[in-house]
Amino acid sequence: MTRVFNDPSNFALEAVSGMATAYPQYVKAVHGGVVRATASPDGQVAVIVGGGSGHFPAFAGWVGPGMAHGAVCGNIFASPSASQAYSVAKAADNGGGIIITYGNYAGDVLHFGQAAERLRAEGYDVRTIEVSDDVASGPRDDTRKRRGVAGDVVVFKIAGAAAERGHTIDEVTELAWRANDRTRSLGVAFDGCTLPGAAEPLFHVPAGQMSVGLGVHGEPGVYEVPMGTASQIADLLVDGVMAEALEIGTEGYSGRAIVLLNGLGTVKCEELYVVWNRVAERLTDAGVTPVLPEVGELMTSLDMAGISLTITFLDDELEELWCDPVDTIALRRGAVAERAERQVSDDTDQAETPITPGSEASQALAAQVVKGLEVIKQVTIDNEAELGKLDAIAGDGDHGQGMRYGATGAVEAAHRAAEAGAGAGTLLVRAGAQWSESAGGTSGALWGAILTAFGRALGDETPASPQAIVTGVRDAVDAVQRLGGATVGDKTMVDALIPFADTLSAKQAEGVPLAEAWQQATTAAQSAADRTADFVSKLGRSRVLGEKSLGVPDPGATSFCMLMRALGDADLFASETN
Amino acid sequence: MTRVFNDPSNFALEAVSGMATAYPQYVKAVHGGVVRATASPDGQVAVIVGGGSGHFPAFAGWVGPGMAHGAVCGNIFASPSASQAYSVAKAADNGGGIIITYGNYAGDVLHFGQAAERLRAEGYDVRTIEVSDDVASGPRDDTRKRRGVAGDVVVFKIAGAAAERGHTIDEVTELAWRANDRTRSLGVAFDGCTLPGAAEPLFHVPAGQMSVGLGVHGEPGVYEVPMGTASQIADLLVDGVMAEALEIGTEGYSGRAIVLLNGLGTVKCEELYVVWNRVAERLTDAGVTPVLPEVGELMTSLDMAGISLTITFLDDELEELWCDPVDTIALRRGAVAERAERQVSDDTDQAETPITPGSEASQALAAQVVKGLEVIKQVTIDNEAELGKLDAIAGDGDHGQGMRYGATGAVEAAHRAAEAGAGAGTLLVRAGAQWSESAGGTSGALWGAILTAFGRALGDETPASPQAIVTGVRDAVDAVQRLGGATVGDKTMVDALIPFADTLSAKQAEGVPLAEAWQQATTAAQSAADRTADFVSKLGRSRVLGEKSLGVPDPGATSFCMLMRALGDADLFASETN
Repeated sequence: MTRVFNDPSNFALEAVSGMATAYPQYVKAVHGGVVRATASPDGQVAVIVGGGSGHFPAFAGWVGPGMAHGAVCGNIFASPSASQAYSVAKAADNGGGIIITYGNYAGDVLHFGQAAERLRAEGYDVRTIEVSDDVASGPRDDTRKRRGVAGDVVVFKIAGAAAERGHTIDEVTELAWRANDRTRSLGVAFDGCTLPGAAEPLFHVPAGQMSVGLGVHGEPGVYEVPMGTASQIADLLVDGVMAEALEIGTEGYSGRAIVLLNGLGTVKCEELYVVWNRVAERLTDAGVTPVLPEVGELMTSLDMAGISLTITFLDDELEELWCDPVDTIALRRGAVAERAERQVSDDTDQAETPITPGSEASQALAAQVVKGLEVIKQVTIDNEAELGKLDAIAGDGDHGQGMRYGATGAVEAAHRAAEAGAGAGTLLVRAGAQWSESAGGTSGALWGAILTAFGRALGDETPASPQAIVTGVRDAVDAVQRLGGATVGDKTMVDALIPFADTLSAKQAEGVPLAEAWQQATTAAQSAADRTADFVSKLGRSRVLGEKSLGVPDPGATSFCMLMRALGDADLFASETN
Repeated sequence: MTRVFNDPSNFALEAVSGMATAYPQYVKAVHGGVVRATASPDGQVAVIVGGGSGHFPAFAGWVGPGMAHGAVCGNIFASPSASQAYSVAKAADNGGGIIITYGNYAGDVLHFGQAAERLRAEGYDVRTIEVSDDVASGPRDDTRKRRGVAGDVVVFKIAGAAAERGHTIDEVTELAWRANDRTRSLGVAFDGCTLPGAAEPLFHVPAGQMSVGLGVHGEPGVYEVPMGTASQIADLLVDGVMAEALEIGTEGYSGRAIVLLNGLGTVKCEELYVVWNRVAERLTDAGVTPVLPEVGELMTSLDMAGISLTITFLDDELEELWCDPVDTIALRRGAVAERAERQVSDDTDQAETPITPGSEASQALAAQVVKGLEVIKQVTIDNEAELGKLDAIAGDGDHGQGMRYGATGAVEAAHRAAEAGAGAGTLLVRAGAQWSESAGGTSGALWGAILTAFGRALGDETPASPQAIVTGVRDAVDAVQRLGGATVGDKTMVDALIPFADTLSAKQAEGVPLAEAWQQATTAAQSAADRTADFVSKLGRSRVLGEKSLGVPDPGATSFCMLMRALGDADLFASETN
């Protein structure tokens, strides 16, 4: 809904004033609307656009070189008065005649028509062009009686570009009508819009339905159908518009088209892009080539949820005008000089480099590593739910899932590497990269770094030795600290990693067999992890949890201890490593 | 809510693909995101931006000359993986070193950091810059630990412009950090956002409240306050950001600033412009001059309802880089050559031209006209509710109100004109202009045209005569037809106007006294108006009313007959007009 306003009855006027203050390089406020902030050549045809407010960027967002010379801004969804139109037209006039163009709605036709009469009485050469692109609003054999929707963008841009090129008012008028007559639009709505200050939307579309052909002020649609997927919506819109497509060759139609995919208010750009994929596909199939299409908010209806598709079937002259430079608040084209295309190879990083086999000893160690990774995978499967629950208390609850995804991916990568004869080092680096890729998130990155650093320490030549394993653990812990930036006491997995690595190397230096040293390191890590829980319980995490005080250990420290214990219990540290 | 998608789990990828298809002149899709479609000079520093999706135009919307060379696009609200970042960076590299910049979030820091390590291991010179502009997310004395929000736009634009100017990687890095360290943001949210496919928003803000400092993924806010007016929201945001303003003179701070007013998803541009008025006012009071501010959607969170304010306290070097040309999907600057300012006089049409007094006879007629307008005003007051009810059945229910507004305004204008000695013609033209202005809408325009055309027929010299009045009526009917484009049978007020004018002129030609001719004309008009009701009843207005079939006459025809009858009954047609 529309939530932000001061006095609802003054909303449209305040919005225009704010626009002129924010973008003084584009527009100046005058009575009734805005005119260009920049000078136009004497004798240039002035293109005046306008209508009710609530449709941004329509109408003031299109004022500037290459498009409109002035915009008449009525109240929300209400036609401006004739005196507003008269005032804006007078302020925008360059002595070359005035074109007033607007969507074909009764109120607009009357008020702009009246302004035109008044201006003519004063000697101006004035033409009016009523945009009528909405296929849902009238029969195919009388298109000029239809109402105007996002086709405004096309007609205004063509007229503005023609004026900019110095065409006469007769020529600009003919081109604008030609653009209008070759433009078709169709929209669907999923929910209504709310006027500033109103408690309820102007109208509703039943939940789970979409209304086809609904107008930009809530005028009734043609029919309702169940809400579709993005691709189904694209099909519906393409079918509706293409039913009136020009035939190739008709009056110069070349198979090229302006295509606009418009969000009416609360359908976001990402959603429109998803729809666009299918629109582009369908148009390609139909032999229609889009020329500088636009996907985004082009003609809104406050916060209406809806999408519209507009297609203009081009001839060469209209295409050139559509591509001409334009510089307005909402539509800009021709910035920066043209540049060559960048050549990008298709497979930047997809093909893995081939594996150089490791030494026999390192391959044997690699086999042990694979077993270790299988153990890790099984632990993450068995404890996914528990880790998820732990993480959900203070986080987003995806730690268990992330660990399982990561370990599963790592095991697969490790098997592939082992089959190719990888040494322990390369195998762990490949497994680490895949863990990170499969898991995503923070824990994915950290476990990726752990495996990678451990692998680099082992290398592909050295046989297993307690010293190599201890060095690998130490390097892995360093990598986590470097990457995550955490130190002991930050209540992260580092709180468990450091005592693990410290105990392991101290015991190994004392001559304790690796399997036993590992058990003692695990115990030290677990006790540190338990203290993170104690800490969280005492302090709470006020910035994240507000007032809650939770007796939960850090999920990353907890899962680390689980995995180290399982590795210790798995009898992997065969005598030859001691 | 987010309604339009195919497979929710594939949403982000489909959106990026659609963007690349829609705007092939800007971006090319590669593994992990997009790179520029245009070539960059060899040796130019490559600026890579990125993060989770759902924040359009962040991040792929900023790829192009003058800004980013590539964007890494994660899943919705999720950090991209290190391999995605690695792949995009490799594809975007120009041999001048790589800057990877992103908002300061744990997952992004980890994955982008890991990609940087991998690239460095391959010999690339890589720097990372974590944007940290959100004042709500950390203490003032440790700003680089804060999270990044719309300040991304500033840092990425500055870095991109510096790279474009050919600066070295050391220089670009220093400038980007400088921009970050001088940038502050604060946001408020009014309602949560919905992930594609989810039935419920990620979070809710209690109704009637706004959450201050809420993060772009729903991270908890600092506190909640009751929902404010647009100006109160502006005050809150300006106060929050300006609390950390640099002092004039600090490190080259000139009192000039980049100012961004950002809509987070479903706050529309018009609402932002209303807020902007107050932001601009407050900044002016504080001695801060905005430099090319931006008001619109700069960093969204799907369909979150919220607003954020970003201010970068500029020095001269940063200001130049901010103003440099840029050409991306979402930010374009420098289109079309610079132009001179247009000179617009302040009072285009506000001062009425002085009235030249009419002849004595016309002034007498003008006095009669004023009486007639008073009668009309009274009829509209007495029948406002009835006309409104009639109009509400098939229209928007404002016909009664519009007629009262118009007639009241017309009477006031008529009195002013009469006091200035206006003849009947000028008085009616002034009254007609005011009717249209006061009433707005269709009926306002038509009644404005009726009075104006009638006035032009009477002129300011001619005394009253039946012939003049009949001609005036005929001209008025012509004006309505010309303006509205309706003919008899279209079921508009024209159906009543034509028989009225025809009967009046026929009877007058037969020598029937004007008063009597007027009565007969009214009867003919009423009978025609009744037939519009009959017609509506038989056919229904299927396009507008669907299946409803209504026995209601056209409101415009009905009110016209009411007014003509009242004028006839008012004994205004004194003997001298016969």
